Amino acid sequence: MKVPSSLTLLTEALRHLPGVGPKSAQRMAYHLLQHDRDGAALLGRALTQAVDQIHHCALCNTFTENEICETCLDPERDPSLLCVVETPTDQLMIEQTLTFKGLYFVLMGRLSPLDGIGPKDIQLEKLVSRATDGVVKEVVLATNFTNEGEATAHYISETMKARGLQVSRLARGVPVGGELEYVDAGTIARAMLDRRAT
Amino acid sequence: MKVPSSLTLLTEALRHLPGVGPKSAQRMAYHLLQHDRDGAALLGRALTQAVDQIHHCALCNTFTENEICETCLDPERDPSLLCVVETPTDQLMIEQTLTFKGLYFVLMGRLSPLDGIGPKDIQLEKLVSRATDGVVKEVVLATNFTNEGEATAHYISETMKARGLQVSRLARGVPVGGELEYVDAGTIARAMLDRRAT
Repeated sequence: MKVPSSLTLLTEALRHLPGVGPKSAQRMAYHLLQHDRDGAALLGRALTQAVDQIHHCALCNTFTENEICETCLDPERDPSLLCVVETPTDQLMIEQTLTFKGLYFVLMGRLSPLDGIGPKDIQLEKLVSRATDGVVKEVVLATNFTNEGEATAHYISETMKARGLQVSRLARGVPVGGELEYVDAGTIARAMLDRRAT
Repeated sequence: MKVPSSLTLLTEALRHLPGVGPKSAQRMAYHLLQHDRDGAALLGRALTQAVDQIHHCALCNTFTENEICETCLDPERDPSLLCVVETPTDQLMIEQTLTFKGLYFVLMGRLSPLDGIGPKDIQLEKLVSRATDGVVKEVVLATNFTNEGEATAHYISETMKARGLQVSRLARGVPVGGELEYVDAGTIARAMLDRRAT
């Protein structure tokens, strides 16, 4: 019994999606062809169009269809502040807090030596030339508080300080609404060390 | 902050995949654009090509690129036996056992009144006209042994018997290698009722 070749191709291509193994890929292919051909055609066009049109912003490295993204072009933002985040989603989360009016740099990743991701893979050279444009005064490190995120922040911090820039990091501590009983010891220890005068 | 429109389109289109919600769709879109653009382009082409080329076999209803699939065209198969399965995967499983040399009919689904899937949605008219071609003598029901699969088998069985066809069902019982201690009571009860003289 021979499976049609374009069905085999589709099943194999679906495995390029993260977290999709052979069984899921087959289930997806059958579902699309049996129940959602319009959706499959739409997804096909959306993929081709996105690959064709989406590039990295020349300034902040995020995804954009133009050379410079809208955030970087916004004249109301403070160009002396540069916030470094790992992903566009992280940037969106910070934007939603309405607490930051500077510009961003999106690494599109994090240092992770175990996965073979070094400084070259996360556009650190682009970040250095962006941060040393003479306008940026402070670099705010907003990478995740995971091992990889902390290592990335440390590496960037050293690089930026060596170039005379002021560097800050998002505060660590007990989350808003957090009860000490349910907060892990590491977080409480950090909150104690970083305690502030009131 | 505005997300590029072709990125938004891609994220929404990815939600047509079964089991993919908004968070997974976003993760997939970022992954493809950041780490696997070739894979994304490949998947886009594979989808477009599959939607364009894959149709249902005029005889057995499975996916094929031709009007009649290769299995149905195979002259070595016994055309008096017709095995009814739910999906092409089920057909493949049966083929791997090398125990069936007849032809197939693939429902591409099962009766499921709770999900609004009735006889018209699983091509039962096509099955009836296929089974009453004058050559088919026995219909072997190989739908799953789930509630929906059993209901589908029962419905098809009644329809076929009313047209004078011989109908059989895959045997139920203790799986090969099964230990009674770990087999559920329903299976043992069925194996007892269907016990065979040795």
